Amino acid sequence: MGDYTFNTEVRVRPERALAFEKEIYMAGGLSAKDAEIVAEHLVEADERGVYSHGIQRNHIHIKRLEMGGTSKTGVPSVIRRHGATALVDGGNAMGFIGGKYAMQEAIEIAKQYGTSTVSITNTNHFGTCAYFVQMAADAGQIGIMWTINCANHMAPWGGVERQLGNNPFGVGIPCKTRPTVILDMATSVAARGKIVMAMKTHTPIPDTWALDKAGNPTTDPVKAYEGTVQPFGGYKGYGMTVINAMLGAVLNNSAFGPAVIDFYEEPDKVQNNGFLLQCIDINAIDNLDDFLLRMDAAVDYLKGGKKAEGVDEIYLPGEIEYNAQQIALKEGIRYPIEVIQENNELAKRLGVSMRLTD
Amino acid sequence: MGDYTFNTEVRVRPERALAFEKEIYMAGGLSAKDAEIVAEHLVEADERGVYSHGIQRNHIHIKRLEMGGTSKTGVPSVIRRHGATALVDGGNAMGFIGGKYAMQEAIEIAKQYGTSTVSITNTNHFGTCAYFVQMAADAGQIGIMWTINCANHMAPWGGVERQLGNNPFGVGIPCKTRPTVILDMATSVAARGKIVMAMKTHTPIPDTWALDKAGNPTTDPVKAYEGTVQPFGGYKGYGMTVINAMLGAVLNNSAFGPAVIDFYEEPDKVQNNGFLLQCIDINAIDNLDDFLLRMDAAVDYLKGGKKAEGVDEIYLPGEIEYNAQQIALKEGIRYPIEVIQENNELAKRLGVSMRLTD
Repeated sequence: MGDYTFNTEVRVRPERALAFEKEIYMAGGLSAKDAEIVAEHLVEADERGVYSHGIQRNHIHIKRLEMGGTSKTGVPSVIRRHGATALVDGGNAMGFIGGKYAMQEAIEIAKQYGTSTVSITNTNHFGTCAYFVQMAADAGQIGIMWTINCANHMAPWGGVERQLGNNPFGVGIPCKTRPTVILDMATSVAARGKIVMAMKTHTPIPDTWALDKAGNPTTDPVKAYEGTVQPFGGYKGYGMTVINAMLGAVLNNSAFGPAVIDFYEEPDKVQNNGFLLQCIDINAIDNLDDFLLRMDAAVDYLKGGKKAEGVDEIYLPGEIEYNAQQIALKEGIRYPIEVIQENNELAKRLGVSMRLTD
Repeated sequence: MGDYTFNTEVRVRPERALAFEKEIYMAGGLSAKDAEIVAEHLVEADERGVYSHGIQRNHIHIKRLEMGGTSKTGVPSVIRRHGATALVDGGNAMGFIGGKYAMQEAIEIAKQYGTSTVSITNTNHFGTCAYFVQMAADAGQIGIMWTINCANHMAPWGGVERQLGNNPFGVGIPCKTRPTVILDMATSVAARGKIVMAMKTHTPIPDTWALDKAGNPTTDPVKAYEGTVQPFGGYKGYGMTVINAMLGAVLNNSAFGPAVIDFYEEPDKVQNNGFLLQCIDINAIDNLDDFLLRMDAAVDYLKGGKKAEGVDEIYLPGEIEYNAQQIALKEGIRYPIEVIQENNELAKRLGVSMRLTD
């Protein structure tokens, strides 16, 4: 993720990006508190090199707030509570806000009961799974997240229609000194954004990325764009995306299948996104510190294995993003100039005086 | 899974296979109750066409009981209980026995708390995830299972050494009239058994299945056998196998990495296998019946999608196995003659008078 190269690169201090983002979302109608939550999530994604989920999405998030698809003033709340479970109504607030609220709830419940399952409905695009499962890890817990994506671009295995999202899935497991092991992955081989990029640059794509409208593999990005994205790992990835949708959305009656609106194309429509959070308080199973040391040893063991020719390092899930974040915190976040410019223009349009760069 | 063709096929009534299996395991030293649990699990795998996990493994299971790697008389027990969690010591009994005990515990806890997390250690090869998550589904719950495999044959991404198993993962979600949606998958592209089969028949294998000792893709089954199996979906499958191992084994200090013995090659060694079970009682989140109807609708929607040319039907995870089971229950379980013969010989050796066939 952290291996992007940009034609013209600009570095922005994280504090400045955070302050800018807060201004943007306050101008977009959010309270200062909510704007801070959104800012923190988006800037962290950029720090980690996950630009697809960072501030480059400001324009669509703001558009949805302006057009009413997402509520500016929605407040998440627990609407059902039983044992170690909760059902949260996201109040149609931005998904970052509903997600943080629901994960805080999940962490608190797991502190009491050793584990928790929190289902959230009536929410929106929530950003990265990494952000939320890291919250659990910071609390000495394991975080798990089953989600449905914000548009249907995948066919069921053997099908040709866009009936499923490339529904992401996340798990975070803390270590003592090593970075939290974070699996955060969508269930397609490649993000649809990569197909869009290839279309713009008239570049062929690998035949493993997408199927054309007839269900055949294609290297033509235009045919791929009209068709469906392929699940990673064939029918196994299809299986995972189905399970994610059922746990994330069917469980609590959030949008699934034909009810899924396109987050990007229908900014005036309520999304009714849903997802499922689970926490495990490690102390319930074993002494936390002993576990964290075992995790360090497990990471060291995997990283210490003999490498294939040409491989410099073996990485754990989430480690590349962690490394990118450490560099960004020291040296500033690397951005392509285009993202800076479009966001400075957005600020201007919203009457925000601050800019990402001087 | 249900698409095997055998040179010489024999059909065995499930009741007969069950009775035979019970005799085999009682002769192997198990109590009648434990032998029944093992019989039920193995025969169900065969009914579902998952022959890799069925009675063809009797010889290794019996060998381990005989050589002391697995305990004949071990009894699983809860050794720690906090809130909606439990830690189970499998007593080094067969994994089918420990797994069933732990899943019953998980289901009972979830009935009370709406959700549960049960970690089991000191157990053995447990068979299929499908069996256990179906238990949860039968109780109106969702079952989730994170596990570590019984031998290391996979390298970390970028590595060349056998440091990881192709650790399986399972989720079961009940429907009203449709079969339970069951994802039960290992994290390798292909089972290692398929490489062994290709080696025996001197057949090249697809270059996506395995890496040679240097970490290069190979179509030579001998080089593949000496090397490592590939994770499904590349680094994403690697990420999943790591997470499975950490949740299944590192969490409760079961065998991971160098501590993993080869279940097949070291029948005298204690395995100390571990896995993690999670249940969600659907009634805690929403009315169970409403949910089951939504699941039926979700399944119908996916199955009703337009199919690619040459595709007869869109299947949900677990549906092919369910269909195979329905046929097996009516018409008997299809077995290759070789499996019948080797098991009848095993019976003879164990002094069991019953045979699988007349």
